[in-house]
Amino acid sequence: MLFYSLDLIGTMVFAISGVLVAMSKKLDLFGIFIIAFVTAVGGGTLRDVLIGRTPVGWMFDLNYIYIITAGFLIGAIFKRKLDYLRKSLFLFDTIGLGVFTLIGIEKGVEAGLHPIICIALGTTSASFGGVIRDILCNEIPVIFRDEIYATACIAGGCTYFLINMTTIPENANYVITALVVIVIRLLAVYFKLKLPAAYK
Amino acid sequence: MLFYSLDLIGTMVFAISGVLVAMSKKLDLFGIFIIAFVTAVGGGTLRDVLIGRTPVGWMFDLNYIYIITAGFLIGAIFKRKLDYLRKSLFLFDTIGLGVFTLIGIEKGVEAGLHPIICIALGTTSASFGGVIRDILCNEIPVIFRDEIYATACIAGGCTYFLINMTTIPENANYVITALVVIVIRLLAVYFKLKLPAAYK
Amino acid sequence: MLFYSLDLIGTMVFAISGVLVAMSKKLDLFGIFIIAFVTAVGGGTLRDVLIGRTPVGWMFDLNYIYIITAGFLIGAIFKRKLDYLRKSLFLFDTIGLGVFTLIGIEKGVEAGLHPIICIALGTTSASFGGVIRDILCNEIPVIFRDEIYATACIAGGCTYFLINMTTIPENANYVITALVVIVIRLLAVYFKLKLPAAYK
Repeated sequence: MLFYSLDLIGTMVFAISGVLVAMSKKLDLFGIFIIAFVTAVGGGTLRDVLIGRTPVGWMFDLNYIYIITAGFLIGAIFKRKLDYLRKSLFLFDTIGLGVFTLIGIEKGVEAGLHPIICIALGTTSASFGGVIRDILCNEIPVIFRDEIYATACIAGGCTYFLINMTTIPENANYVITALVVIVIRLLAVYFKLKLPAAYK
Repeated sequence: MLFYSLDLIGTMVFAISGVLVAMSKKLDLFGIFIIAFVTAVGGGTLRDVLIGRTPVGWMFDLNYIYIITAGFLIGAIFKRKLDYLRKSLFLFDTIGLGVFTLIGIEKGVEAGLHPIICIALGTTSASFGGVIRDILCNEIPVIFRDEIYATACIAGGCTYFLINMTTIPENANYVITALVVIVIRLLAVYFKLKLPAAYK
Repeated sequence: MLFYSLDLIGTMVFAISGVLVAMSKKLDLFGIFIIAFVTAVGGGTLRDVLIGRTPVGWMFDLNYIYIITAGFLIGAIFKRKLDYLRKSLFLFDTIGLGVFTLIGIEKGVEAGLHPIICIALGTTSASFGGVIRDILCNEIPVIFRDEIYATACIAGGCTYFLINMTTIPENANYVITALVVIVIRLLAVYFKLKLPAAYK
């Protein structure tokens, strides 16, 4: 339940980051909504398509549509105000990163795939929404230039499978894995002393 | 049968619009053909992949290949002459928009998906061929800047499900839905007093 | 076995070509690895998704991951040295083109698809890794401007199905088809007296 709530919060914040990028490109409202949508669900959609879990996940749970619409409205209406919130947004974005990585790994495990592939799926889930967003906005994807983003997902994935070999219970593993992703990301940004591009 | 004919005509005109964009980018013949192809079937292909209807539709009906090849040849040979036909082309493009929206909605209904998702699939079918075309040509997709295109599809989709709740027979619903898409698109272009970019 | 070895060599050389393009775009190490990866497996992945062979092929054979990682390391470490090897690289790239075309055709035949569709799948397998690479690097795909690349695949595909109608054994057909692709590509480059962009 907590997990699902964090997933929805991450989805909304990813949608908001899509709105901010799309507005800077002077897209119209439909374009902004689509960018918000693909930023939020693009990574998970690509993962589902690659492993053959179709129809893809968000087609069966309208809460994703509602939460993305909420993120779209918040982003579009409060754009200027969001400047004051960028640190909170970045925090939630990072939580989303951790949760999405975990969900991607889980889907890979369910499909019986090798740990290396599961880690790749976790990283895909967490980071390819942003890649598709940047392609649609005609930019070279920012995560290809901002190394720590995907690296945090990969480190989290390795942690997950290392812990999996111990007697630590699965729920604890979920929390630790997500925290590894989140802490690495936060430390990386902290020591570079700058926010990532989308929240500047 | 009429429906299938309109689908093929829409496919051909979408292919021609792809040829026109690709030629303006100075691509070679193979590049122009690929752009024509993805413009024509890209939206339906993405829809089929997302709902897991694979192998995707055009792989089972060579008429799509033939009609796209015809559109490619017409576009490549008569490029200059097409300037005189741009109003006719735009009309057929708009008919394609209506028919593709309807087909996308139907596939969603067949897959047992929620009306909101079906409307999204209809819009995807009708408009993402153009999105992929623009990405391959290294442009920000024109429909993200030309609001009425996708909005017409969404309005048509809403009409479909509203009528579906009445006793109006399904065939009549098909015609009305497609007409709603077409009329909104025509009115939008008429009142802006300009043709959309691809037929300028 | 020879076939599988050639497939892996082609995969590695495609990965190296991805590294070279990504480094010229000043991406970070993660970005370079992703570009290497999609260049190597992007075409086959798109083919598998379109015909519904999911989870896609490379998820079941870690050798692809290892060989791409090797290509990534070779490309990243020996970038300057590769200048002396560009003719060898181009030769292996061309062998990969032939092998990938053949694999794509085979997958289409296995799925019971029409020869025209199989040829399209062979061409997709061989050339769309490079298309995705160029899109991620924000370029118009080079194969849309360098006609002979995909044309060689198509010619090879036609050869395959023509020979298939004779009594020539299948193994011989594999060799002839791959050779047709390779020879056309080599002749095209030779008579233009220049290497393709990625190996200049």
